[in-house]
This record gives sequence, structure tokens and C-alpha cells, in this order.
Amino acid sequence: MTKQVTTAENGVNVAALLGAREALTGTPEAARFKWRATSEWLNGTHSRATVHGFFGLGGEQKHRQTFRFDSDHPEVFAAKDNGAAPVEFVLVGLAGCLTAGIASVAQNRNIQLKSVKATLEAGMDLQGILGIDANVRNGFDGIKVHYEIDADASAEEIAALVAQSQKRSAVFDVVTNPTNVTVTTSKV
Amino acid sequence: MTKQVTTAENGVNVAALLGAREALTGTPEAARFKWRATSEWLNGTHSRATVHGFFGLGGEQKHRQTFRFDSDHPEVFAAKDNGAAPVEFVLVGLAGCLTAGIASVAQNRNIQLKSVKATLEAGMDLQGILGIDANVRNGFDGIKVHYEIDADASAEEIAALVAQSQKRSAVFDVVTNPTNVTVTTSKV
Repeated sequence: MTKQVTTAENGVNVAALLGAREALTGTPEAARFKWRATSEWLNGTHSRATVHGFFGLGGEQKHRQTFRFDSDHPEVFAAKDNGAAPVEFVLVGLAGCLTAGIASVAQNRNIQLKSVKATLEAGMDLQGILGIDANVRNGFDGIKVHYEIDADASAEEIAALVAQSQKRSAVFDVVTNPTNVTVTTSKV
Repeated sequence: MTKQVTTAENGVNVAALLGAREALTGTPEAARFKWRATSEWLNGTHSRATVHGFFGLGGEQKHRQTFRFDSDHPEVFAAKDNGAAPVEFVLVGLAGCLTAGIASVAQNRNIQLKSVKATLEAGMDLQGILGIDANVRNGFDGIKVHYEIDADASAEEIAALVAQSQKRSAVFDVVTNPTNVTVTTSKV
């Protein structure tokens, strides 16, 4: 009798990722990436961001296509609601990062995912950005993320996938820890 | 002789914003917002986020339309590049937030904007997320934002617009200061 060994297929090329880890261990310069976006003001609180090129593996890289994102304030802020609110893009990035991590870790642990759904909610007290109360921060007072995952694994194994994804998530780190932002301006 | 007083028209309804500030000063509960996103895994590192409803002014609110965002890893990560990278969404949100703030502050200060362009770059050492070096953080090692602004104002006044926008920006706060993220999981 032959024992059937099934291999999870989540669409993540773990062999390539492990190979990259090995390759980048010897060439730390190649591991230094620069992510970029440009943005142009359209009218009111409406602007359009463009994402295309980035730097990594020692050279300029490009996405297969140019991504454009309209951002605006909603109508309850007396704006035109021509795009998602800027703060919502942060939630989109956090969800994308944690979910990609879950799929990668699941593949590495040979766990077949069937569905992964995330629900994110971030509280924000507008007394901050409106300058009503100096003790209220401008940003989120916290973010709750809930994952509902169907996979060939126990509840404990599924929780461990999510925990490992959090541990290695770039956006989770950016949100939970301070990151320096330097803003410069020139008049044209 | 009558002095001509020109009024800047940047498309921001400052009167409504100032009215909202006054109204919310008396009703702090209405200032408590909840921003939301949901996300669904598609395949590999590719997921799709949806943004539509949010809570504020004491009730459920909706955007005029449902916004959907595909997120994926680029091909250099052995992925399909079916969307912007999760970390790039953070840059999009930061640009949108600062630019909306610049337009709002300019309107309030009666400065006519002609063009506002932002260029963002965030360094990230992949030795963090790949687990090569435990001393390297997973997220950005810093973000540089550069604004090129054409406006009926001096370079100093333009720089002051940007500074005030930073001071009141929700996403700038989320990125530069720690925000708690609580992640829960259930198996379905």
C-alpha cells in the first residue's frame, strides 16, 4: 500500500520564495526595495495616485500594468466621494498584506486553503482631524481584523497561519509601529 | 475705488467643514467614525478588497459606489502581479490624505491652487519579511514625500499649507505613530 501524499495548491510559488530568501541572504543589497507612488490633485479633496515602477533586486522594476487609484472624501464631509477615503486605502493594504501572507504560509505548511475572508474595522474620532480636541489623535484609535478561513486544517493550525502572517507582514508593521515620514515641498 | 477681493476656488466646501466642526463640538458621539473594508482571497497572493459602508454621524453611511481593489505581489516575488502591492496602497492612502488636506487648508486660507503633485518613495529591506535578519523590520525604513505645488502664494505660504496638512492628516498619523491592530480568526 502506498500512502497518498497530497500537496496543497494555493497558487503560491514557495520554492521560488525560499530560493529568493537563500539568494538574498548572500546579496543583501538586492533585498533593498523602494516602493513608489505619485499623486496628482484633481479638484477639492479628489486626487489620483499612480503606481507603476519600483526598485528592487538591484535595479528598476515595473508592474505589468499601471495602477491608478482615485481618492476623495465622502459626501458626509461635503465632498464629492469620487474615490475611497485615504484611510480606507490603509485598510485595503493591511488586508492584502495579511491575506497574501496567510496564503504563503499555508502553502509552506502544505495546508489547502478553500476560502479566506477578512473584515476590517477602524475607529476614528473626527474630533482629532477637525481640531476640536487636541487630546484626540488624527488617525485610527485601533483596527480590528477578523478572518474567516476554510481550510484543510484544525482551528489551531488556521490561527497559527494568521499569527505567522502577522509576524511577517510589512503593512502590519507599518501600522503598528512608527515609521518616519519626511515631507518636502517645492513651488513650481 | 473698490478693492477687488478674489476668492480661491479649489473645490473644497470650507463653510460646510467649519459648520461640521461646530456641530460636532456639541455632539462628540457623532464624531466617532468606523471605517471598513472587507477582503477575499482569490489565489496565490492575489486578493480583492471591497470598500462601501462606514459608520459616522451616529448612523450607517455608504459611499456613492462600491470600490474594489485588487492586491497582489509583483512578478519578482514569483507572483502574478494582478494588483498593486499591499505596501503601495499605504502610499496611495498617504498621498490622498495629505493632498486632500492641502486643498482644504488652501481653501481656508484663500490660496488658489493650480497644481499639486506628490512623489512618494518608501524604502524596505526584504531581509525583514523574508526572515533573513531579525534586526531588520518588516515594514518601511522610512517614507519620503515630495510635493510640487503651483499656487497663488509664496514658497513659504505653500510650505505652510503642507505643514498644516501633515498636522491634521489621519494617514500621516497612522503611519508615523503606533496603532493597535487586533486580529481574530475563525474556522468556517
